Amino acid sequence: MADQKNFITYEDLAVGQKFAAGPQRVTQEDIIAFGKQYDPQDFHTDPVKAKDTVFGELVASGWHTACLAMRMIVTATPEMEGGMVGRAVENINWPRSVRPDDLLSLTIEITELRASAKYPARGLMRTKNTVTNQNGETVMEMEAVVFVPRKAA
Amino acid sequence: MADQKNFITYEDLAVGQKFAAGPQRVTQEDIIAFGKQYDPQDFHTDPVKAKDTVFGELVASGWHTACLAMRMIVTATPEMEGGMVGRAVENINWPRSVRPDDLLSLTIEITELRASAKYPARGLMRTKNTVTNQNGETVMEMEAVVFVPRKAA
Repeated sequence: MADQKNFITYEDLAVGQKFAAGPQRVTQEDIIAFGKQYDPQDFHTDPVKAKDTVFGELVASGWHTACLAMRMIVTATPEMEGGMVGRAVENINWPRSVRPDDLLSLTIEITELRASAKYPARGLMRTKNTVTNQNGETVMEMEAVVFVPRKAA
Repeated sequence: MADQKNFITYEDLAVGQKFAAGPQRVTQEDIIAFGKQYDPQDFHTDPVKAKDTVFGELVASGWHTACLAMRMIVTATPEMEGGMVGRAVENINWPRSVRPDDLLSLTIEITELRASAKYPARGLMRTKNTVTNQNGETVMEMEAVVFVPRKAA
């Protein structure tokens, strides 16, 4: 497999390292477009009908926030692009709603690194990913488990 | 809060109940469009460059599969629309890749139901959600924890 890129490898990483990404603004138009395509419920698609829902207002789908976090990860860390592969995601929660014009930022902290027994060419990295809004309030948290390439021997 | 819809409530549900949704076809065009917007890595955006990546071919972003599962849930269960609110998602994993023209189906099984101590008007439902392809192979699994409205007293 040709691999021309100079990826970040397992050996470059350490528990406790943090990466920041964003900010990324979310518009009402973005929220509605995503809602119509992937989560068509009134509170994600219609600012007027949303008033009569449990949220009382238009809010972003939680999956939209997750996807925006993914985009922030990729665009903020191009040297990781193509080299890392998600294995699992654990414990996603959304403690606050994302509203139109919120400005989201992402922090990634490495919480665990270990060799993969199954794949000697890869390590496994666990990260705690936190998305906050412009007021510093957490709107999404999750843990990601990612395969990371190891330096060629 | 006006609530004209006849939602499924906590009292209508039982552990062990299953819901099926789909099938939903995923095209190469869908995979690339999603990849460019939310997960811009060669293996999600470019069938030629994908050959030189760890996947060796174009595959759908795992977040794309998660979003398609959400759409299947909403469109298959319109009587739930607007009444249920996701609280958390646990243990997402993607044991196989989703490829162009795969036909995805979703099964939802209720694994736990309990009253919410914090919100008397809601119950909490835990489900195991499984997405399979046209060969019956699992491409995504996750557990969802969802607030469900209770029947008004």
